[in-house]
Order: sequence, then structure tokens, then C-alpha cells
Amino acid sequence: MKAVVYKGKGDFRFEEHPVPKLLDSRDAIVKVTLASICSSDIHIKHGAVPKAVPGTIVGHEFVGEVVEAGSGVKNFRPGDRVTVNVETFCGECYFCKRGFVNNCQNPDGGWALGCRIDGGQTEYVRIPFADNGLNRIPDEVSDEQALFVGDILATGYWAASISEIRPADTVVVLGAGPTGLCVLECVKLYGPEKVIVVDTMEDRLALAKEHGAADITVNPLRENVEEVVLANTQGRGADVVIEAAGGADTFTTAWKVARPNAIVCIVALYEEAQSLPLPDMYGKNLIFKTGGVDANACEEILKLIACGKIDTTYLITHRKKLADIMEGYQIFENKRDGVIKVAIEP
Amino acid sequence: MKAVVYKGKGDFRFEEHPVPKLLDSRDAIVKVTLASICSSDIHIKHGAVPKAVPGTIVGHEFVGEVVEAGSGVKNFRPGDRVTVNVETFCGECYFCKRGFVNNCQNPDGGWALGCRIDGGQTEYVRIPFADNGLNRIPDEVSDEQALFVGDILATGYWAASISEIRPADTVVVLGAGPTGLCVLECVKLYGPEKVIVVDTMEDRLALAKEHGAADITVNPLRENVEEVVLANTQGRGADVVIEAAGGADTFTTAWKVARPNAIVCIVALYEEAQSLPLPDMYGKNLIFKTGGVDANACEEILKLIACGKIDTTYLITHRKKLADIMEGYQIFENKRDGVIKVAIEP
Amino acid sequence: MKAVVYKGKGDFRFEEHPVPKLLDSRDAIVKVTLASICSSDIHIKHGAVPKAVPGTIVGHEFVGEVVEAGSGVKNFRPGDRVTVNVETFCGECYFCKRGFVNNCQNPDGGWALGCRIDGGQTEYVRIPFADNGLNRIPDEVSDEQALFVGDILATGYWAASISEIRPADTVVVLGAGPTGLCVLECVKLYGPEKVIVVDTMEDRLALAKEHGAADITVNPLRENVEEVVLANTQGRGADVVIEAAGGADTFTTAWKVARPNAIVCIVALYEEAQSLPLPDMYGKNLIFKTGGVDANACEEILKLIACGKIDTTYLITHRKKLADIMEGYQIFENKRDGVIKVAIEP
Amino acid sequence: MKAVVYKGKGDFRFEEHPVPKLLDSRDAIVKVTLASICSSDIHIKHGAVPKAVPGTIVGHEFVGEVVEAGSGVKNFRPGDRVTVNVETFCGECYFCKRGFVNNCQNPDGGWALGCRIDGGQTEYVRIPFADNGLNRIPDEVSDEQALFVGDILATGYWAASISEIRPADTVVVLGAGPTGLCVLECVKLYGPEKVIVVDTMEDRLALAKEHGAADITVNPLRENVEEVVLANTQGRGADVVIEAAGGADTFTTAWKVARPNAIVCIVALYEEAQSLPLPDMYGKNLIFKTGGVDANACEEILKLIACGKIDTTYLITHRKKLADIMEGYQIFENKRDGVIKVAIEP
Repeated sequence: MKAVVYKGKGDFRFEEHPVPKLLDSRDAIVKVTLASICSSDIHIKHGAVPKAVPGTIVGHEFVGEVVEAGSGVKNFRPGDRVTVNVETFCGECYFCKRGFVNNCQNPDGGWALGCRIDGGQTEYVRIPFADNGLNRIPDEVSDEQALFVGDILATGYWAASISEIRPADTVVVLGAGPTGLCVLECVKLYGPEKVIVVDTMEDRLALAKEHGAADITVNPLRENVEEVVLANTQGRGADVVIEAAGGADTFTTAWKVARPNAIVCIVALYEEAQSLPLPDMYGKNLIFKTGGVDANACEEILKLIACGKIDTTYLITHRKKLADIMEGYQIFENKRDGVIKVAIEP
Repeated sequence: MKAVVYKGKGDFRFEEHPVPKLLDSRDAIVKVTLASICSSDIHIKHGAVPKAVPGTIVGHEFVGEVVEAGSGVKNFRPGDRVTVNVETFCGECYFCKRGFVNNCQNPDGGWALGCRIDGGQTEYVRIPFADNGLNRIPDEVSDEQALFVGDILATGYWAASISEIRPADTVVVLGAGPTGLCVLECVKLYGPEKVIVVDTMEDRLALAKEHGAADITVNPLRENVEEVVLANTQGRGADVVIEAAGGADTFTTAWKVARPNAIVCIVALYEEAQSLPLPDMYGKNLIFKTGGVDANACEEILKLIACGKIDTTYLITHRKKLADIMEGYQIFENKRDGVIKVAIEP
Repeated sequence: MKAVVYKGKGDFRFEEHPVPKLLDSRDAIVKVTLASICSSDIHIKHGAVPKAVPGTIVGHEFVGEVVEAGSGVKNFRPGDRVTVNVETFCGECYFCKRGFVNNCQNPDGGWALGCRIDGGQTEYVRIPFADNGLNRIPDEVSDEQALFVGDILATGYWAASISEIRPADTVVVLGAGPTGLCVLECVKLYGPEKVIVVDTMEDRLALAKEHGAADITVNPLRENVEEVVLANTQGRGADVVIEAAGGADTFTTAWKVARPNAIVCIVALYEEAQSLPLPDMYGKNLIFKTGGVDANACEEILKLIACGKIDTTYLITHRKKLADIMEGYQIFENKRDGVIKVAIEP
Repeated sequence: MKAVVYKGKGDFRFEEHPVPKLLDSRDAIVKVTLASICSSDIHIKHGAVPKAVPGTIVGHEFVGEVVEAGSGVKNFRPGDRVTVNVETFCGECYFCKRGFVNNCQNPDGGWALGCRIDGGQTEYVRIPFADNGLNRIPDEVSDEQALFVGDILATGYWAASISEIRPADTVVVLGAGPTGLCVLECVKLYGPEKVIVVDTMEDRLALAKEHGAADITVNPLRENVEEVVLANTQGRGADVVIEAAGGADTFTTAWKVARPNAIVCIVALYEEAQSLPLPDMYGKNLIFKTGGVDANACEEILKLIACGKIDTTYLITHRKKLADIMEGYQIFENKRDGVIKVAIEP
């Protein structure tokens, strides 16, 4: 089968690869029916993911159909339509038992798919611990609706869930890229009064307002974000800030626009250390929640898609055949043509 | 001025009463601009509220305009449009400091308005601790939108807020009367997958579906409620049950339709003790939250009305002039003409 | 081997029974090194546990040594000293994943040991899902120290953990029998200012004061419990009440001595329905937590025993050889000789 | 009266100052019976507290006796022995109502005593909002026992309370100076299995072990802290880390010794910004709680002192008369003679 393979820093190739086989009784083989390109794939390409192993098929955001299930797989059978969790987890270790699945202590645990073990930008994928790594897609949910469940939508859902949003709160989301828009879809589940979305790209702000839950959009190239937030919160600042952009400027904005005692959720993937000016923020008593997704709520997310409370189909701005995936990479990596996400059909 | 006065068991009269004056520096006088009749008023009339004092003007659900404010009132001035909290509270005692305002230890604390001190089914009302008892109505919110904020909507908001609803949960609301419908408006702030509403009156179920957040409605005269709930929850039962009806049958339904480890929120006002069959529910590990509203979130509720996330105007099925309020009582007490709530204009 | 077997209502016999064998790859065989008699055994004898199956070896409170482990058991090997959880659970179902292990959906899940499958008042026991059902005893912890970890101490730990006790709280524990004393050991982990223990047996109150964390003891035969609690709480009532006695009188005392907005944890096993006088408690806003232990914290309990923060050895008032266990039953069932618990050595 | 006055950067003088008078009906005048020197006083002296106003009497850690109370003071009368909160707060603003008293929006709110308004290193002090700023000392509690309640002990209590410590946890406290030792006293209220205390001064570590709750002490000059913590936590890291030292090295140690998903409570007062290496800690999902004390739990702390669960008298290593306070400053500022805290008697 054809697959996008990480050959080494700067080198992704679309080449032939053998079809995967079951290696453990708890594995399943999934036929990919729709995949996507994620900014983490770009990080791998740039050599910025040290644990990525050359020779691995990339891609960790996809849906498919089970074609084979090991004897130890209890909940899935060939023919089941499924989402795939970006995190591989055993379900039995200290961290898994507490819900911290991205810290799974199994050697294959954590973000392995498309990084350390073969991923989904191809035709077939082996999924370890299939009972944990898969979730059944309800009949009424399409592949496009389910496409982001296992990775960026799980990230948005997790970020919103740990941010302690209460009804009537004002929430600031920094970044209206794919992750920020997924955060936005999930923030609205918590009944905020106002969601303020910040980005420097006007077309992304427009999407956040048209399709998402953004009540107010701010472009820091045109407006002072801190002033806008203060003006909308009786001068106090936001109750919750979710940072999904990942820059030094957005990190600083995050704590500055937060009201005293706010939650500041740092869900972006940073490439550099940030400065935490504790003397400047002393007495502000901020709570910083840092890190990456514990992707263990995919069943809930699928329910919320099925009942219409979450919709991320508008993120798919481009569609390509698997044979043309390298064109998709060109568009996505260079943020061309207003791209948010590219869907890849086999 | 004219007012509805509780004269004794079974005896409400619409009669002349003197206009109230400030008695304390923290009092304010509010001119009533819209009032309502509550089922608690009926309880008083029936002599079922022991602490109600004969000679008191009834009515504890109304909005108005501040016409006079004592020297110790900091946040309100004549001309301010306001909602009025059903609970009177000092803000300084052990319970108030913890947010349990209906247990305020002040002699006037708790439900006093329209019960122990003169209430709002009249033209002018004295509000003790006005800084706590009033909330400013945003300009864009009408009197009809704000009418229930201080009592039944506060109750619905409080019930939803203590019920630990999480996104994708299934919530059962028992009772689609005024309180149940207000609960319903607030439950939807928490992102449930399904809300199942139960009532024996078809017109109320229709309202819950048309205007409210009901996904599924059940009439126990026609269907087995437990079966419907189990069929909708993979046989487990509801994650959260909110009992807003107040009967022995609905109390029993409440714990029966709850899944193990569910929250069962008993927000109805019961006239009789209920049987708690602990041996039958052993191991089900239910959490029962009982009691009456802590009405200290009115500011949040008003924000949510202003931004369109809560709307209770459809509860107003009838409108009467103050002079005709006794007709309103006839309709409301006898549940005539599909009445949910009667709005009274001075 | 010899074992106590439930033959039918009123009929426990000490008779010969075959040694158990592994039935599943996740089973382990444990050689019992110390066992105990629990009041639930007496309930079975009285025919008050409908799910108990005649012919079953009773006993669900014991420690031992692993003598054989199935191929699917990951964490235990022959020679390991272990406690045994009263609850059998798969670790994979909806409830297990949420920590609600006593609602495990596996056919063998929940309280099965010594009830539906052979238990521990004998020499050898088969433990299903051994990785979940066993916990390793630290070297420095003796069998007597660990004896109650899997059942009544787990119950006390769970009750304390769900009761939302905060430092400086006043906690009332109703009942100073085995469960009440275990609750007491665990309540003190949460930094309460005062623990008030209530029982009608003076020797039990003396134990609670001498060995346990009781600051104040009250005998309702001599004193008015409500008055004592109010006198100790500035007239407000207890912040937390844990009901471990199981009578109609103690159920009533529980909600009466609770302050408004308190947690009332009903951890006793009741034989009858109780009356919940909602009109009398209206506005008191109590939270009732009902049910039975989720025994999934045994590892933590063992750590706390090892470091000296929990000690239940003083509960062992009597010791018997397995051959004399029926004498132990006589003493325990009739509460003779100041018995709290009887330890049974094989 | 004589007082220590901040004259400007580097300049503290012990000089004559007029006795304070009531300025508002909610003020009280307190006669100081015991005071202390805090490291924040040293910060003021060094000019490191921008909001400190030259000419102000310093000192914010003291106990005393009410000698005069304004007409609006409800809970205190002359003769009452009291602790004084370091934070001044109105109790009525947005933040006070939520318990965030150090963000009180009143112009006098927050840390004002001994910084912007005259403090306690003298004979008499005016306390604004006396009902909030004072707490009655129980008869059985001495001035020395109560001395730190309003400031560093409140800080330790607050740090422990927000750190989400659960029974059986391993907690690391960085710093065994006055604040670290107060943290230690409060951490033990939450039932941890192990408390590991880190400091470079051996005498402080000895105090932590002898009087405090330290189970293990580590001196980073002699041992690798990370290795010790990992060795004590099965290689996972600490469940909770409380940073009470305030250096770049201790900040780094804090996040390094934390297990994934731990709480890292940054309660120290930093003089410089710190580096937050988000790429290095990605996936570790740490929660950082930053800031300064909300001193609103003094009543609880006094209860816990009265019942013997908190004791900080061993922190008082030196005693001086008010006339000799400048000698006390010499000792404290230079950490001479094993000083932890100096008590000042008028």
C-alpha cells in the first residue's frame, strides 16, 4: 500500500509500504476511510519531535473501518466504523487508572501512532489496545463529522473540560487555527456568556464567528487585546483563558488578559521555553494548566456530534485523494488558500 | 395602595395597604413594574407555610424600579430597574459567607418577602439589605424576560448548578410546570446529550419540547418512564435526575431512573415525608441533594438572559392588571386554560 | 479443606470442601493466613442477602498468600502477601472506568466473594480478576494490621473520602461498632477539629476514645445527642455526619444533628426503608450520600497503615483457630465479651 | 508611641509616632501584645515592594487586644484578644464574595497593613474593616501560639488547602524557612503518606523533622533531590509540590520532582521572572498554582491550634522587647543564630 513515511529531518516521502498485521491479541487492523494532516506532522517533518522514528508512516488523525480484530479485543468486530485515539494506552497502569492516558506507562503508551509506530496517512493501520484506542462511530455520524474526534477535537474537548468554565463566564481563546476552533466548539458546552477569540488572520476570525461560538473576535494587529477583554469584563479580565496558539506573544497575552484567580489553560504545543514573570503577576493568583490531551472522552464527543452540539465539518476546507496527499501537505504547511484542514480520501 | 394580603388560612384579600417606608439605612423601596403568582403563594393560602404571618402582603416574584434607597445602600439609585431575590440575606453571617444564603442567620433572613414581611403583589415594596436583595436589569432585558430571575428561575439555575451535569450526560427532569421548565432552561447550559422531561400534562410536555431543551418527553400516564430512560441510556439509567414535581410517585421515579452513582436533585417542595427504601437502593450509591434555592446567582442569570442563553418568557401564558389579580389567582390555582404563569401589571 | 458454608437460611455449617482451582487466566489462588467474621456474614445467615447462593463458602474479609497465579495475572506471583478486595471487578466496564467498582457490570462483579462465589473462611480461595482484587502487603505491615483493608476498613476509608471533610470541621460518627471505628480511623486523615462519636455501648465508646480519634463520645441512652452536637458547634450542627449504625433512630439523628448544607453519609447497611421528612428538612439543603463501598483504594490504605496513620489492630478483641470458628460466630453474633472483631487463624 | 517606620529604600527607623484614631465606623484600634518580623518587611526595606509608602509604620504579623471599636463593628468589643489578617478586605466586592480577599477591590484592600497604612511594629494599630480583619483568640490559645495566624501561617494553610492533597499522597515542600515550616504544619492536616522537605540549611531541616511533619529531609548541597523523590515514589515523582523558597533553582526543582499531572503550588515570593520550559514539560500536564495568600481562614486555623493540630511556637527562636526591635532586625535579616522568627513584646 502507499503511505507517507518520515525518512528523516525534512524528508517525508509517499512510498510503498507493506500492509500491517496483528502483532498482539489486543490489536485491530483498521482500513482508513478518511484521514487528515495535523500540524504535529509538520513538527515531525521539521525534526522537532525527538521521539519520532525514521521509517514510520505518519498520520494520527483519521477514521476507518475495522477489518480484523485480535482474539483479545472485546468491543470491536470487522465492519465497525471507528474513530482512532491519538494516544495509545493500556488502561491498567497507574496513570491510565486515573484518566491520565497520555502518561500511560506501557512502552507503546502515549503519542505513538504516526510517530513511533505506523500511523494513518495510508490505507491500513494496526491499532494496539484496540478496545481503548477505538470508538464506534454512530450510524448517523459521517466520516467527515468524526474525522477530528481522536486528536484535535479531543484536545479541544479536554482543554475546555479542565478549564473550570462556569455558566456566564467570559472565556478568551487565543488562536483560531484548527485547535483553537475545536476548543471553541467545546467551550460553548459550558454555557459561557461571552467567548472572545483572538487571531491575526481575518479569515480564521470570520470562521470563528460564522461557524463557531465566538461572540467577539479580536485581531491583535488591529486592536489591543487586553483593552478589549477588560472592556468586556467590567475591567476585571477573563474568567478563563485558553491558549491554543503557541507563541511568546500569546503566552504573555494569556496571563495578562486573565482576571485574578482565573484558569489559564496552555494547550498549545510550544517550541520554546516561556518567561513566567512571577513578580509581575504576584497576587493575581493564576492557575496555569499545561500539557497535552488525555484522549479518553471520545465516546462523549461522538455523542455530542450525533446530537448536534459539536460540529467541526467546517474546518475541512480542502479535500484530496491519498494519491495527491503531498499536494495537501504543500497547502497545509504553507497555510495557502485559507486552509484550515485537509481531508484525505484513500 | 392596593395589595393581596394573607389574612389567615384560606383567606387572601385584595385590599388597601399603606405605602412602605425605609426602616433601615440598607433598605430600598422598589416600585413594582411586573409581578407574578407562585405556587408558594398558594401554599400560604392553604395554611401550609407555618412561618407565614397573617396581615402580610404576599408575592415574592417580581421586578421593579428603585424609587428610594437608604444611605447605606451602595449599589442602587432611584431609577435603577431591578430584579428582587426571593431570599433576604445579610451577606455577613456564617452561612451567607459560604453562599448558603437561604440559611442567613439574620432575623429577616431566608424567605421573608411575601411571607413574613410585605411582598410584591402590590405597588411598592421595601427591600431589606438592598445591595444583596436586588440586581440591576441590563437595558436590553425586558421586564418579562427578567420576571422569574429572583425566584423560580433562580431555583432552576441553582438546581442545575448543584447537579454536577457534565457534557454528554443524560438528564431527567421530573415535572414540566413552572419550576421544571426553568430547570430545563438551565440544564441546557451544561451541554447534556439528552434531556428527558416527564409530566402528566400533554400541553406542558409540548411546551418543554417546543420552547425548552427537552429532547424526549414522557407522559407516565401513557408510558413506563423507567423503561424509556433505560432504553435511552444503554440500560444504565440517567446520569442526573432533577425532581421538580413533588409527589410520592415522582420521588420514587427519581431514584429508580437514576443510574448507579447518579445525582438525584430534589428541588420540589414536598408536603409529605417520603420513603427512602435504602435496602432496595443499596449499592446503587445515589447522592440526594435536597432543599431550596440559594438565590445568589441572579447577576449571572441576567447575563445569560441578555446574551440569549436563557429565555423564560414563554412561561407567561396569562397577563392581568393588578386590579384583576384575584382572577389570575383563580386561573393559576386551578391550572385553567393551560396556564403556566400569570404576569401581573400594576 | 474445612470451610464455613452457607447451606440456607439460618444454616451455616463448618464442613469439608474441595480446594479451589484456577478457572480463568486472570484468577489467582490465595492461601488464607488470617480471616475475620463480618456482620454481613450474619446477614447472609439470617437470609437477609437475597443474592447469596446456598452452598457457597462465606467470608469476604481476609488476607493471605498467593500460591498460584493464572497466565493473565500481571502483578502477582506465588509468595506475595496480599489483601483481598471484597468487591470483584473487571476494571474495564463503564462503572469500573469511573471508579464505581461495586457496580462492575461483569457477571461476577460487585460483592461476590463469600456470597455468590466461594469466600475466605477456609484455607484456599480463588480470586477472579486477581490484578484488581489483590493488593500487596508491605513487608512492615502484619497480617493483623492488614486484616480489614479489603472490607470494613475500605468502607471506612471510602465513607470518609466521599464526605467532603475539611480541616477544622466537626464530624459526627454514628455507631462505634467495627464499621464506625474504621470510619473514625479514616476521618482523622482529613484534619477535623472535633469528632463526636455516638453509640449506646459504653465499652465501644471507650475504645473510640482510647484508640480512635473520638474527641467527644455520646451515649444517647444518657444524653441528648442533638444538644451535645449543637453545644459543640455554636448551635449550627455538624459539618459532616457519617451514619454507620443502621437504625431508624440513627437515621433520624443523622439528619437532625447535621447543620444546613452538611453532608450526611449513609454508609450503614439498612434492613428497612427509612422515612425522609422532606417538609421538616426543607431549606436545610442536606446532601445524602448513600450506598456501599467502592473498594478501589486498598493500595493507599496499606500505605497509610505502613506509615502509622491508620491502625485497626485494636478492633481484634478475639482470636480463634479455623477449627473453632463456629465459637467465634457465637461470640460475634451475640456481641458477647465486648467483642468487636474475631480474627480466625487457619 | 514608638514604631518602626519605613523612611525610604534601605531606611527603617525606630521613632516616635502618634497613637492612631478611628477613621471609619468599621475601624477598631488594637493594642499590640506580640508582634513579629517577616521577610516581607525586609523586602520593603530593600525597596523591593513598589506599593510600600514611605512614612508608614511597618509590621503585618501581630496579635493584640481590641481597645476601641467603631459603631459599625459588630463582632468585637474592647478587651477581645485578636489575631490580625495581613489582608484588608471589604467582604462585599466581586473578589471578596468569591473568597479571593487579597484581590479586594476596596482602595485599602489587599496587603495594606505595614505597607500602605500603619502596621504593627509599635503599640497601637488601626484596623480597617475590623469585622473582617480580626479573629478572636480562644482563651486556651496563647499569644505565641496565635502569633503567625494572620500572615505566614495563613499562607501555609492556604497553600496546603489549594494543593489538592489527598490521603496517602507524597508531598514535597521546598524551603524550611518560616513559610515552609508553616506549610508543613498544614500539609499534615491532609493525611499524606510522606512529606519530603528540602532546604540547604541543616538546622532548618532538623527543625522540620523534630517539630514538623517532615518524614524525609533532603539537603540539595549533599543529595540529588530529584533522585530522592523518585526513589520514594516508585519512580513517578511527587503528587504535590509546594515551592516556598523562591529561587530559580527551587522553581526548577519544583516542576522536575513533580509527577505527571501533579499540582505545583508556587507560594514563594519571587524577585525575578522564571523560565517555564514548556517543551521540556510537554505531556507532563502540570498544574501551577501561583500567588499570595487569601487570608480568610483564620477562624479555622485558630480552632486547629486550640485542638492541638497546628503548632508553630517552635518557630519563635528569639524574643526581643519593642525597644530592642532593631537588634531583632539585625538577627533576622542576617539569619544569625539559627533564627527562624523573632517575637517582639511591647
